[in-house]
Amino acid sequence: MPSKVILCEVAPRDGFQAEPVWIQTEKKVHIVRQLFQTGIQYMEITSFVHPKAIPQLKDAEEVVRHTIALPGVQFRALVPNLRGAERAIEAGIKKLKLMLSATDSHSLSNANSRVEEAINKHLPIIELANKNQIKVGGSISVAFGCPYEGKVPFDRIVWIINRYQSMGISEISLADTTGMANPRQVYEMLGELRALFPDITFSMHFHNTRGMALANTFAALQQGIVHFDSSIAGLGGCPYAPGASGNVATEDMVHALSEMGIDTGIHLERLIHVAKEVEQMLGHDGNSYMLKAGPCSDLHKKPEGQEKLGE
Amino acid sequence: MPSKVILCEVAPRDGFQAEPVWIQTEKKVHIVRQLFQTGIQYMEITSFVHPKAIPQLKDAEEVVRHTIALPGVQFRALVPNLRGAERAIEAGIKKLKLMLSATDSHSLSNANSRVEEAINKHLPIIELANKNQIKVGGSISVAFGCPYEGKVPFDRIVWIINRYQSMGISEISLADTTGMANPRQVYEMLGELRALFPDITFSMHFHNTRGMALANTFAALQQGIVHFDSSIAGLGGCPYAPGASGNVATEDMVHALSEMGIDTGIHLERLIHVAKEVEQMLGHDGNSYMLKAGPCSDLHKKPEGQEKLGE
Repeated sequence: MPSKVILCEVAPRDGFQAEPVWIQTEKKVHIVRQLFQTGIQYMEITSFVHPKAIPQLKDAEEVVRHTIALPGVQFRALVPNLRGAERAIEAGIKKLKLMLSATDSHSLSNANSRVEEAINKHLPIIELANKNQIKVGGSISVAFGCPYEGKVPFDRIVWIINRYQSMGISEISLADTTGMANPRQVYEMLGELRALFPDITFSMHFHNTRGMALANTFAALQQGIVHFDSSIAGLGGCPYAPGASGNVATEDMVHALSEMGIDTGIHLERLIHVAKEVEQMLGHDGNSYMLKAGPCSDLHKKPEGQEKLGE
Repeated sequence: MPSKVILCEVAPRDGFQAEPVWIQTEKKVHIVRQLFQTGIQYMEITSFVHPKAIPQLKDAEEVVRHTIALPGVQFRALVPNLRGAERAIEAGIKKLKLMLSATDSHSLSNANSRVEEAINKHLPIIELANKNQIKVGGSISVAFGCPYEGKVPFDRIVWIINRYQSMGISEISLADTTGMANPRQVYEMLGELRALFPDITFSMHFHNTRGMALANTFAALQQGIVHFDSSIAGLGGCPYAPGASGNVATEDMVHALSEMGIDTGIHLERLIHVAKEVEQMLGHDGNSYMLKAGPCSDLHKKPEGQEKLGE
């Protein structure tokens, strides 16, 4: 088990984009600043997507302008196409994230092209990034299961990683976009992938749609994975199951990791405070165990007359 | 990883006892019968506790009378004292479950006596059971953490298991009563306990208070554990955190295990159907991922024009 884990906060992108009601730019900026105060050092700050596709993120440039100077934070932005990459680089983003789906069905519904075509569309982005000394990471959506096609053949994942690698990408996020992964699968798949791709840094993006996000995290930790995404208050839903849990909550991750003696550098109490604030701001509950039960370390007063027991 | 797991359904005891509104005996019996129809073969059917302590279970005899003949089901009942044991045996129960807390604080608040005294009170129960050829299993509440005392020293657990063993008990349930366990702890603790007590059959009783029940289950599976408790619809709360999740839901367990290729002999679809019925009957939600998101195997129709993709 690793002694340190790096969490990337994805609520500003994956969480906010799932919110149907417009969140004012200043509120977004406020939350990002609050998250920064908890010790979070990695954030997926937005997606430079066409405003018509995701109106909620139409203020990408503005959010970046008001947060990019936060000291010590490594921001990355999702870019779905060349235009998005140009905007991101222009805004000062130093790391881009590309997305490919593991299956053609998901790729067509999400990116309007088959995986092979989507790869080809990424090539000019990488060229642009290289020219500007901008880092690029790749992600694979529905890597552990596709809501249309079910189990994804392992060879398919290997093929996409190979294609990413041939584009010069060495950081790959495996996303359980609709919460279909199980810990045995995660453990076995990562064992094989790490053997096949010793030079790739894998990061995990788990959703808690079916309650297995922390189990999958444990399995990935056992395989030495140290990069994980999470989302404050568990923001970010699952479009295929309205009302179901989405991203695993950052505070639940920090709590679970801390209970296992794994350091994230993030202050749990402050994080819970921010999660509460986020729920209040949005006017609805997210999916957070910490907000319902609090951390294990919050002990209860011993019943009357027993104050000295167990000491 | 084991290929088969035995789940014991505890909603009729641990779930119902947490319900503040009286559930009619016939409704309880109906649910037990419905659970039987899903393939469940192990149930903690009730607790023979004083009616004033838990009014909800005052119909213990009646529930048993109407369910005990269900073919092939192994029923056990919780008995807090000798009177309860007498009632259970009289009712035809063939397996009793005893409870001890890991800490004196929890023992005093739950059983009104320190652990040492509680052990002594169990001795006549075991004598009675032996005389009547009734099996006895032992459980350890707050085994992974106590809401009053926090972390429980490992030696304390070893001491209680030794005491159980000296009473002739070889089946011990480790209960994470308030959801304080983490998977690393479960993995490490079970590794040590199985080495120290090769003749004890351990079973796990996880609550999902902080989202780690399935992670803890995975860790226990990795240590070869094949006995787990769970509760339909996730019934059963946590008295220390009102509104928080309680027992891990049987349907979430069956789903997760099935996704990992582990057989429970339980029919998931029927189980989900029963969980829905239970929520409707009680008039409130439990804590069930399956009821919100459905199983991974429920695929979605491919978007228009893509019907043949991925085939």
